[in-house]
Amino acid sequence: MMLRQIFENVRMKCPLIHNITNYVTVNDCANVLLACGASPIMADDEDEVSDITSICAGLNINIGTLNRRTIASMLAAGKRANELNHPVVFDPVGAGASKLRTKTAEKLLEEVRFAVIRGNISEIKTLASGSGTTKGVDADIADKVTEENLSEAVLFAKEFAMKTRAVAVITGAVDIVADGRTAYCIRNGHPMMSSVTGTGCQLSAVTAAFVAANPDHLLEAAAAAVCAMGIAGETAYQRLTELDGNAAYRSYIIDAVYNLTPEKLEEGAMYEVR
Amino acid sequence: MMLRQIFENVRMKCPLIHNITNYVTVNDCANVLLACGASPIMADDEDEVSDITSICAGLNINIGTLNRRTIASMLAAGKRANELNHPVVFDPVGAGASKLRTKTAEKLLEEVRFAVIRGNISEIKTLASGSGTTKGVDADIADKVTEENLSEAVLFAKEFAMKTRAVAVITGAVDIVADGRTAYCIRNGHPMMSSVTGTGCQLSAVTAAFVAANPDHLLEAAAAAVCAMGIAGETAYQRLTELDGNAAYRSYIIDAVYNLTPEKLEEGAMYEVR
Amino acid sequence: MMLRQIFENVRMKCPLIHNITNYVTVNDCANVLLACGASPIMADDEDEVSDITSICAGLNINIGTLNRRTIASMLAAGKRANELNHPVVFDPVGAGASKLRTKTAEKLLEEVRFAVIRGNISEIKTLASGSGTTKGVDADIADKVTEENLSEAVLFAKEFAMKTRAVAVITGAVDIVADGRTAYCIRNGHPMMSSVTGTGCQLSAVTAAFVAANPDHLLEAAAAAVCAMGIAGETAYQRLTELDGNAAYRSYIIDAVYNLTPEKLEEGAMYEVR
Repeated sequence: MMLRQIFENVRMKCPLIHNITNYVTVNDCANVLLACGASPIMADDEDEVSDITSICAGLNINIGTLNRRTIASMLAAGKRANELNHPVVFDPVGAGASKLRTKTAEKLLEEVRFAVIRGNISEIKTLASGSGTTKGVDADIADKVTEENLSEAVLFAKEFAMKTRAVAVITGAVDIVADGRTAYCIRNGHPMMSSVTGTGCQLSAVTAAFVAANPDHLLEAAAAAVCAMGIAGETAYQRLTELDGNAAYRSYIIDAVYNLTPEKLEEGAMYEVR
Repeated sequence: MMLRQIFENVRMKCPLIHNITNYVTVNDCANVLLACGASPIMADDEDEVSDITSICAGLNINIGTLNRRTIASMLAAGKRANELNHPVVFDPVGAGASKLRTKTAEKLLEEVRFAVIRGNISEIKTLASGSGTTKGVDADIADKVTEENLSEAVLFAKEFAMKTRAVAVITGAVDIVADGRTAYCIRNGHPMMSSVTGTGCQLSAVTAAFVAANPDHLLEAAAAAVCAMGIAGETAYQRLTELDGNAAYRSYIIDAVYNLTPEKLEEGAMYEVR
Repeated sequence: MMLRQIFENVRMKCPLIHNITNYVTVNDCANVLLACGASPIMADDEDEVSDITSICAGLNINIGTLNRRTIASMLAAGKRANELNHPVVFDPVGAGASKLRTKTAEKLLEEVRFAVIRGNISEIKTLASGSGTTKGVDADIADKVTEENLSEAVLFAKEFAMKTRAVAVITGAVDIVADGRTAYCIRNGHPMMSSVTGTGCQLSAVTAAFVAANPDHLLEAAAAAVCAMGIAGETAYQRLTELDGNAAYRSYIIDAVYNLTPEKLEEGAMYEVR
């Protein structure tokens, strides 16, 4: 399926996405979902997440500011979404940075079947190994995916995808989107995106919308979401003036998603399949 | 009382508004309150909401990301505000989307006396009937207020207002602001406002400021708030460039509230009284 | 140490800052930390704050939307940061506005050793006296630091700093940064900054980054942070157009921090030492 069609499905179906996410970047997640044509709903109380997930087309779980109360909600929502066969995206923000995050991520992996798992290489390595070091929510420099270690990273991503039966999305200088057999290596985006808090969270939310609208094409849908956010980062960067900084860039990225068309996504996507 | 005077009172009295609201749109609620001349304070712990409400002029309760802990706080704050005769605004975000939201909204209606209840037609129908379907936080298409079903909707709003002894604010393509006898049908605003998360939440916050500064003119104050946000949505829309999207629009709306004058509100308001 | 060097250290060391802060302004705190060259991590569950603080260079505690759960986390994180000798910044938002805030602020002062305490004069007076009145999160008009009562306020700040063994940062028309012996009186900034929610919270976050990168120069680091935010407020103000309001100003301030250089900080800083 072409990326263009994947995105057309999002714009046409307007999937409602249930987000259990952190309070740092939640507003951007809601606005970027609206920008790409989806609808957001945020709900994190154990007493309602099952109801909310039931009326949605997809679920996005992000542990960026997890707490005792919301961990239970993530598990309950994830299981319900699994029962209903709604795709679930997992963003293991900061896995490895605390025992609580690592343990919670592991528990979620055990009890919930994820359609997509998206993180930086350090977070994904933590999930893969139960160990790993995390400098906050960014990958360790030694752990970055670069052109040099790309082949190795692709192999790792495929193995992780096989093991978890999820599409693995590892974001970095080059983004890798892989299932057990195929990997997209994507070269969209701009380094300045890391100076805006939550571009990763936004990508996870957008990915949830893309897979919810294309449940039979998880790999392509995740790749399309990564390309869409990356192209938006490029378009937004070109718009920056001398006085602009990361706050302007933040808005420009969401605006660029809003103005992105399926055609521009198809044209702008820069990837190779390995 | 003229809308101009209503707004002048807000700018003059700078009411302090206590918000127990969702974490998705809370920053916009705070900034739009500052933009209209009021002051925000957010506090949601049961151990302090009574104190906080006591030093404020009005209370805004929004169940957008309710949880067990904050539901108790909403009830406590609402009751305290009632004791002090401070106007309380209720935004039943997503009522009907989960049993928890519907039950909580009903409990709040039973135990707290509201000055204004603001929602979309689907949410208000849920409160009115104890049933109803909600697609996330937006009204069902079949449930939208349009020019065709306006008379019916006005009747419904008046009945709901009578029943709850609150001013009913039902927002949609046409906004209805009604007490038991009189209804304002307001045609300000722009459809693109629904592509920004939380414009409804912002309106509820602004409404709390308007009624807090005009406690003896609840109906006119709520109508003025709806006109003010609608005019801001129009002004902001005119400012959009080709590269702008919903993120720019989000800022432009708040900026337009900041630059709105009582005179421009009076001139720009488009309503009929039924 | 010159302000220029203080800021160079921030840009060079990129300190990771642990924030336990309110959900109103948390996104701005994260983005302003990135803008000044630091990295943010937000974590507020008691089960992980000790781990998170351990991997950070500094801790920022803000009680703007405190609750039972997070109060315990603030205490645990503060104590752990003290053990590790990481500087801790305290922002007692709304101290005096509720018994819970006042009591919590007092408890934190007793059990945690702060490198810097930053608030408006009303909040700091509450901490100093155990009494005081607070109009929301802004200082009472009668309590503002002005040119007229500056000498008195400087004395008060020095005494408070002596008593708490922290650098006192009292922000207002003139900002005072004082330890027991020396006070910087800073005249950067713009009154319109108070029309953006959370510029105080942002300053506290930036201060945490500045002291974390300059742990042996707490007084100068706090003064540099205050000058940096003030200069950003000035630069951003100059950028405002007729249609801009507080939402544009909000972004422009963070953009100005992003574009601030150590040289511009040195040149633009307006202070006298008393």
